[in-house]
Amino acid sequence: MGEIGYIIIQIFILLLAAKALGGLFERFRIPSITGEILAGVIFINLILFFPDFGGLLHFDPDAFMKEDGHFLHVMGELGIIFLLFMVGLETKFSDLMKVGRTAMYVALLGIVIPLLGGLMLMLAFDPGNFNLALLVGTAMFAMSTGIAIEVLRNMNAMGSVEAKVIIGAAVIDDILCLSLLAVISGIVTPGIDTASIVINTVIVAVFLVFAFGLVSRIKRLAKIRRLNMLERYRNADMHGDIAVGHDVSEFHEKHSHPSELSMLGIAVLVCLGMSALSTTIGLAGIIGAFIAGMLFAEFKDTMPCEENFNALTSFMLPFFFIYVGMMVRFDNFDLGLIPLLAAMTVVAVLTKFLSGYWGARKGRMPKDSSTLIGVSMIPRGEVGIIVASIGLTLGVFSSSMFTSVILMVLATSVIAPPLIFWAYGRMQERIRAEKEGESPSA
Amino acid sequence: MGEIGYIIIQIFILLLAAKALGGLFERFRIPSITGEILAGVIFINLILFFPDFGGLLHFDPDAFMKEDGHFLHVMGELGIIFLLFMVGLETKFSDLMKVGRTAMYVALLGIVIPLLGGLMLMLAFDPGNFNLALLVGTAMFAMSTGIAIEVLRNMNAMGSVEAKVIIGAAVIDDILCLSLLAVISGIVTPGIDTASIVINTVIVAVFLVFAFGLVSRIKRLAKIRRLNMLERYRNADMHGDIAVGHDVSEFHEKHSHPSELSMLGIAVLVCLGMSALSTTIGLAGIIGAFIAGMLFAEFKDTMPCEENFNALTSFMLPFFFIYVGMMVRFDNFDLGLIPLLAAMTVVAVLTKFLSGYWGARKGRMPKDSSTLIGVSMIPRGEVGIIVASIGLTLGVFSSSMFTSVILMVLATSVIAPPLIFWAYGRMQERIRAEKEGESPSA
Repeated sequence: MGEIGYIIIQIFILLLAAKALGGLFERFRIPSITGEILAGVIFINLILFFPDFGGLLHFDPDAFMKEDGHFLHVMGELGIIFLLFMVGLETKFSDLMKVGRTAMYVALLGIVIPLLGGLMLMLAFDPGNFNLALLVGTAMFAMSTGIAIEVLRNMNAMGSVEAKVIIGAAVIDDILCLSLLAVISGIVTPGIDTASIVINTVIVAVFLVFAFGLVSRIKRLAKIRRLNMLERYRNADMHGDIAVGHDVSEFHEKHSHPSELSMLGIAVLVCLGMSALSTTIGLAGIIGAFIAGMLFAEFKDTMPCEENFNALTSFMLPFFFIYVGMMVRFDNFDLGLIPLLAAMTVVAVLTKFLSGYWGARKGRMPKDSSTLIGVSMIPRGEVGIIVASIGLTLGVFSSSMFTSVILMVLATSVIAPPLIFWAYGRMQERIRAEKEGESPSA
Repeated sequence: MGEIGYIIIQIFILLLAAKALGGLFERFRIPSITGEILAGVIFINLILFFPDFGGLLHFDPDAFMKEDGHFLHVMGELGIIFLLFMVGLETKFSDLMKVGRTAMYVALLGIVIPLLGGLMLMLAFDPGNFNLALLVGTAMFAMSTGIAIEVLRNMNAMGSVEAKVIIGAAVIDDILCLSLLAVISGIVTPGIDTASIVINTVIVAVFLVFAFGLVSRIKRLAKIRRLNMLERYRNADMHGDIAVGHDVSEFHEKHSHPSELSMLGIAVLVCLGMSALSTTIGLAGIIGAFIAGMLFAEFKDTMPCEENFNALTSFMLPFFFIYVGMMVRFDNFDLGLIPLLAAMTVVAVLTKFLSGYWGARKGRMPKDSSTLIGVSMIPRGEVGIIVASIGLTLGVFSSSMFTSVILMVLATSVIAPPLIFWAYGRMQERIRAEKEGESPSA
């Protein structure tokens, strides 16, 4: 059997475990992605303790994180990029602008409070090591949009105001994170160039202004185009070109409707192109994908691609959560760090929750909506893991400290989904009760 | 920018080049996959001559073939596996049985003639080196189903008898290849165990008998189930449970219709599971995927997944052709080998064409159908590349000889698609002419 055969077996086992655990968790009203993450955790640690599953697999637990182009990482990344594109498809630019102020509060508080919380905690544990404390604080403030969004999507909650605030905060958060991360690695790394930080931040700002400007411009053009199309249809009808009974949508189909499959190809290229552009200037790829989705949303009626894109995303996305789970390795973990890990996790959960809740309240949102936004801010993601790697490379983190930070990041992504689930249910109940109060006859 | 950012840029560039060249080629009536392969060829050689495209990319042209889990290889492999699953979905077991004898002729001749051709050619070039000649002969007989099938699919020709013969021959070919490859590497490698070859062949035979038995059994069960369903519907209708105007399909939908997206998940798992099983016993993964597709075809009406699966395949498949193209490197190529390469390519094309044509004629197929089958046999695939690697590892092949064999494999996959295109068109014309002859009034 060639090496690729072993990889097909790996993929099969990973997907089967992820689907099985995800399905099981859903029965107990725990979001399925918690199960998918756990499948990754179980897989990697079984491999560490029973190498290669007795010859069934060839899997080097060290290589998969070192190889840049490893399929688990790449397919996971594509999954999360596709997810954000789909979120963009469903997001109206104007809706996002409406919640802009609240999202800004949530994002700003969500950076300051966790950073200070992490800094103070670590200075209490190890007073002399400011760099260590600063890096832990940094790892604490970068949120992971993907997890919260996937949970909300599974509950069909993407249309809610709360989801818009979360997405808006995530976009702002990512931009601020980029600049701050650059500044903080500048402080920690000796001799980094501050000019490049400034230039980078300017480029990012220009890109975003340009991209969002493009979104609103294309929105207007698309509207004009639709009106012209309707006009043409009416003229054609008057001249008797269209048989009676045919309607606008059929006319559409005949005149401007390439097959949905080739639309998928175009959508994928636009999505990857914008992701590539945003990574080139230093932003996360998902920001570009999100903007691409918002651009594409304007062509939804003439270029249907949602269903096919959804199929693609549903296959790729589990690899993201499996990959996240596979970061949790218990082979070189120092048990003495458990108290610190517990403290870090508590601080991470509380600071993000508080800042989300407070930010939303400042934006005049109801208490239960603010709770939902608070818990949705809890999961940390890739940036936390990147910060941990920086710490390890610079020698600021020991190997155990590195694992602890990653475990903290993971703990937040396992704790958050059930909380989001619960908070959304509570909010829904209140809304239902209010509706019933309004129309007692129903 | 993290390493993953560079990979997103790579994927974007590769897909864009593949789509652009594929689209351009289609305008000139050359199948798009030729363009996709060429995109891979151009990419890798540009990287070799301008490393990293001036900093835009981080791409190590040596690493991507050495890393087992590299995403280009894995995603390409998944693409070809998904393609064969879809082919299975569209293939009726009974149709395959009908063409069984013809397929067997095509497969047997398609192994013997190219093997002898390659052997004789190499003995003429280098009379003393029997092992070298044997390995080149081996690299010449293993066909690549994927390329022929993708070209035929793009022309909506999968329903034809010719396509069934090609698929049947591919399945038989793969099984015979496995056994022969084991025997031949036994001859070339000193001290390999012949008992394991025999055991392996027996296991493969048992697996195939079992799998195809399962296909025909499930087919019968599914038929009974459908009849029961219809019965239940009639009873329900008599008792007035169903409003007038509802039909069977709607009843179906209500009572046994999980969402198409979760069906996709099940279909992917079944497909990967069967692929994993067939690689475990030493067969190619695509054989298992094909059988899984045939199994799933029986549940098409209650478990629709084709459209979503198609979307998935259309994204993943280009990576297969890009990866194939990326094997062609001109950096360490010895120009003195060009005459040998040309001779090998001519022998490879002629022997496969002749054996396919002859086999089909023996199965009493018309001349133009036999031509189509002959040219469809021409592309060689992964097995040829695997044989070349074995030759390199054992020291039988020099580095230049290795490249030559790979270039020969590639040349066949670039030459074949336009020929298949042409042969199919010619056959269609004859069929059209015959139809017009039958009904001159139409």
